Amino acid sequence: MPGFEILLQKQLKGKQMQKEMSEFVHERIKIEEEYAKNLSKLSLSPLAAQEEGTMGEAWIQLKKSLHDEAEVHLKFSNKLHSEVEKPMLTFRSDHFKKDLKKYDHHIADLRKQLASRYAGVEKARKALADRQKDLEVKTQQLEVKLSNKTEEDIKKARRKSTQAGDDLMRSLDLYNQTQSKWFEEMVTTSMELEKLEVDRIEWIQQHLRQYTTLRHETDMFNQSTIENVDQLLQAVDPAKDRDLWVKEHKTGDVRPIDLDI
Amino acid sequence: MPGFEILLQKQLKGKQMQKEMSEFVHERIKIEEEYAKNLSKLSLSPLAAQEEGTMGEAWIQLKKSLHDEAEVHLKFSNKLHSEVEKPMLTFRSDHFKKDLKKYDHHIADLRKQLASRYAGVEKARKALADRQKDLEVKTQQLEVKLSNKTEEDIKKARRKSTQAGDDLMRSLDLYNQTQSKWFEEMVTTSMELEKLEVDRIEWIQQHLRQYTTLRHETDMFNQSTIENVDQLLQAVDPAKDRDLWVKEHKTGDVRPIDLDI
Repeated sequence: MPGFEILLQKQLKGKQMQKEMSEFVHERIKIEEEYAKNLSKLSLSPLAAQEEGTMGEAWIQLKKSLHDEAEVHLKFSNKLHSEVEKPMLTFRSDHFKKDLKKYDHHIADLRKQLASRYAGVEKARKALADRQKDLEVKTQQLEVKLSNKTEEDIKKARRKSTQAGDDLMRSLDLYNQTQSKWFEEMVTTSMELEKLEVDRIEWIQQHLRQYTTLRHETDMFNQSTIENVDQLLQAVDPAKDRDLWVKEHKTGDVRPIDLDI
Repeated sequence: MPGFEILLQKQLKGKQMQKEMSEFVHERIKIEEEYAKNLSKLSLSPLAAQEEGTMGEAWIQLKKSLHDEAEVHLKFSNKLHSEVEKPMLTFRSDHFKKDLKKYDHHIADLRKQLASRYAGVEKARKALADRQKDLEVKTQQLEVKLSNKTEEDIKKARRKSTQAGDDLMRSLDLYNQTQSKWFEEMVTTSMELEKLEVDRIEWIQQHLRQYTTLRHETDMFNQSTIENVDQLLQAVDPAKDRDLWVKEHKTGDVRPIDLDI
């Protein structure tokens, strides 16, 4: 497989990785939504709703804090969607593949041209060797039998041999031009692909960091959902609750008294 | 309804509230377990497992961090079970209801006794009034017609009236003794019930604070699950990844070269 194909496959694999990361984030979003839904549902539970006084208030706040937690996780999942999943999914759309194909065809054409030029060189090299051999044979014939006809043949063979030499030089020249163009294009294109890969890595890095930032935020926001509960639990006062309860239920207002005559 | 019944019902309601809070915590535990299960499962996903180099390492760590998060939530749910749900469920077991019934019967007996003594007083009061009226009638008869028989009757009526007066005093005394005992028992028992209620409130307060402490811990532990991911994302280096990749795939080792004669 040509080295350039390997480079292109790396690009396609990179695109696939980015798509799979986006799928992974999508799964995480679903988990967060499910968790938020369950927390929110539980926060509406009527359990222990009849608890009274300051303890009742703390309990209401504790239940409410589950709703707040649910909101935090919902916000996390929404931001994961808009700031991580979606950008990852849409980065380098389908026309990226077309761009890669264009590179591929361009370099393949050059490679084909280069092969054809190489064959040309081989052919010219062989033609030159044939002409040189022919010239040699004719020169030996001259030593044996001198005639006008033979001298004419040698002149002709020498001219053809020189021409074959020129052909070879021209073929070599064409080959080397093509090789040089191929090399230049390979370097340019490889550098472009390298830049694309650096962009991809930095782009993923940036969005995965956005993921960790959102996770940090979630933990911090979660901390704050529990603060009100802490405060109200701190304020729980059984003596105050008793007073409230006695006033409400009016216990002790009617009771047997001492009797006298 | 006697005031004491209201006090006992408050105790029973308190026990019910504590049971319902324990149920609420149980539901929370189930939500945490489900969340942990889902996170843990996703952490094992093969998505984007072919990502290479420093980015590949960061990605592996990001997936691993979901497993760590799952562990944090599992630990939270385990501690919720042992440190909040279970104590809430077992605090004041069934013999607490028997204790309350004992109080109830004791005070009910005193109340019955008090009613009976009160009836005794009313009866003695009426008997005294009757005797006094009888004495009055007989005294008037004496003014009309003097005789030994009448004088004897008056003496007898006066004696009976005095005795009825003594009976009333004795009934009043018995009533007041019972009322005093009832009052003493009511005060003692109410104070015991008050103490039970203070204990309950403080006990719930303590365990709900344990809940908020565990929630805080969870948020903090969660923060730390993401630290390694942050570090490895920081260390992502496209240039290094390219070097590694080129060495591994040996691209560029074989390539067309310049040709010469």
